[in-house]
Amino acid sequence: MWPSQKLLDLFQVELPIIQAPMAGANGSALAIAVSETGGLGSLPCAMLSEDQIRAEAGIIRQQTAKPFSMNFFCHTAVTPTPEQEANWASRLAPFYKEFGLDPSEIAPAPARRTFDEGMCELVEEIKPQVASFHFGLPDPSLLARVKAAGVRVISSATTAAEARWLETNGCDAIIAQGYEAGGHRGMFLSGDITAQPGTMALLPQVVDAVKVPVIAAGGIADGRGIAAAFALGAAGVQIGTAYLFTPQALITDIHRAALHHAKDNETVLTNVFSGKPARGIINRATREVGPISGDAPPFPTAGAALTPLKAKAEATGSGDFTSLWSGQAASLARDMDAGDLTRTFASDALQRMKQLAGT
Amino acid sequence: MWPSQKLLDLFQVELPIIQAPMAGANGSALAIAVSETGGLGSLPCAMLSEDQIRAEAGIIRQQTAKPFSMNFFCHTAVTPTPEQEANWASRLAPFYKEFGLDPSEIAPAPARRTFDEGMCELVEEIKPQVASFHFGLPDPSLLARVKAAGVRVISSATTAAEARWLETNGCDAIIAQGYEAGGHRGMFLSGDITAQPGTMALLPQVVDAVKVPVIAAGGIADGRGIAAAFALGAAGVQIGTAYLFTPQALITDIHRAALHHAKDNETVLTNVFSGKPARGIINRATREVGPISGDAPPFPTAGAALTPLKAKAEATGSGDFTSLWSGQAASLARDMDAGDLTRTFASDALQRMKQLAGT
Repeated sequence: MWPSQKLLDLFQVELPIIQAPMAGANGSALAIAVSETGGLGSLPCAMLSEDQIRAEAGIIRQQTAKPFSMNFFCHTAVTPTPEQEANWASRLAPFYKEFGLDPSEIAPAPARRTFDEGMCELVEEIKPQVASFHFGLPDPSLLARVKAAGVRVISSATTAAEARWLETNGCDAIIAQGYEAGGHRGMFLSGDITAQPGTMALLPQVVDAVKVPVIAAGGIADGRGIAAAFALGAAGVQIGTAYLFTPQALITDIHRAALHHAKDNETVLTNVFSGKPARGIINRATREVGPISGDAPPFPTAGAALTPLKAKAEATGSGDFTSLWSGQAASLARDMDAGDLTRTFASDALQRMKQLAGT
Repeated sequence: MWPSQKLLDLFQVELPIIQAPMAGANGSALAIAVSETGGLGSLPCAMLSEDQIRAEAGIIRQQTAKPFSMNFFCHTAVTPTPEQEANWASRLAPFYKEFGLDPSEIAPAPARRTFDEGMCELVEEIKPQVASFHFGLPDPSLLARVKAAGVRVISSATTAAEARWLETNGCDAIIAQGYEAGGHRGMFLSGDITAQPGTMALLPQVVDAVKVPVIAAGGIADGRGIAAAFALGAAGVQIGTAYLFTPQALITDIHRAALHHAKDNETVLTNVFSGKPARGIINRATREVGPISGDAPPFPTAGAALTPLKAKAEATGSGDFTSLWSGQAASLARDMDAGDLTRTFASDALQRMKQLAGT
């Protein structure tokens, strides 16, 4: 028995384990494996076209009758000024020279679309059990339509203040995303990463701040972390990095190899790959351009100028300029099928909680 | 029943709760209250003279027959170069001007002594149950004498690599100090605070890395955090910030008031008060000089030049230039006697662990 049934009821799932949506690193296969095992699988949609989203959601529905989540970004799209673009090009010029690249070759950044009318229509059409948002919430009129479609709404808070804001603005559950978490911070009321609380401190403060169920994220990669999250008052967990070790994850061999070697202090929050702070494994780009660069243009445009460098480096088997997203607990993860991993998470966590009571 | 008896056996205590030694913020009174309640009270010695240490330890022995710990720093003392001093003075000059202060008035920094022959003799004389070190371990010949005196040795690790180093070099137990922790990082193999893991990620990785018992520190301020630490594999916890809310803590009203208002994202790692990174509540000094300043001279000398600014500000009731040490979970703490707090920690944690198993 789980200490809290709240998320199980809200999401209509058997296990309080959410597979974190990882844009660019997972599609339908991972979501299906997790949902079919009883957890909540997630389809990250921010980097997919409407046709791709419809196709991927269709595959999920075909393969499992169980609930799943669709994830969207809610950032305010900002076009960089010519000056910002020039500063960034100038900052990266030595690397372009080293690789014999022409700065005029820069293609647009990988699209990271903000939740809009078209995506809202898709949610109304597909009606996933859960819509998960990052960087706050969508425009109130769109959010009202999502909720009117009977879709449960969740989003990430990196502080107790953000959690209160999300509850006030309609979230059915809140992800408390600690400093340890891999990938992009969900932060939206403040951008100060130097003050972001770790999961151990953040989670109970968020639990005390809101009435809706709280989902723990950040630094959780095995049954011990799940049990700890429940001890701190969470009603469930969201796990990302550990799912990157599954065959269902869509990551390069370079990323996979880096994850296998990442020690506890070998990740960093960096803005060089997108313009917003995200946690990834330290590499040449984070060391020599970042980790935080004042020259990086606004999200998500910073990535465009890195892409040719990434391609050149990856062609030689190097992840020097690749966004190697990872949380701080990669060393706890094991190569395992996503379904088996989800089952192992659940049984290890339940066993751990029994041990704690000496039963 | 606690899930692990290892620390209870090692320290000969009833509760696996260590009151964190807080140099400048606690003396014998706090240590006595915690030890007498069954936890492990700690006397921070780095800022005391030998006579003061002998006197304080004498008071502890007089008031309780129970075990206690003495804490020492193991930093390598570095004298700043004239250039470093000049840079620092120049960095702070605008504030000196604002307060009408004369830069020639700068007194030496508050003494923070590194563990040496004299302190080793004191440990051999007093024979506390535990000697706790920060910033690594003392010279091997001194450490051998501490251990030969039958004193248990502990120190802080901020990474799994530091934990392995401490175990190899003789620690009987290791404190895993997460990013959330208040005060000085114990880090000694690396100084890169941008990569420091949070407690949720660090703790299980340290537990997996060493055979000796692991003590969790960072972000723990109530029974939920203690239960979470055990879930992650700890054999006990070390708690600092929450004990600053007790009447036994020796902090100013300014510090106490700041702690009462500190939100989860209102602390930062800063080097401006000492030269080494330590977590404290954001104030004018951390905002306008730091949080991390490349101009700060080596530990502990940076504090000297701040002292006149601190005095001027405090005279008007302001903590603008005071080191307001705090972890990230101050908002969980409650004003309470240190003995009652220790008892509450224990009963809340045990109850929480029972709840987790549904018993």
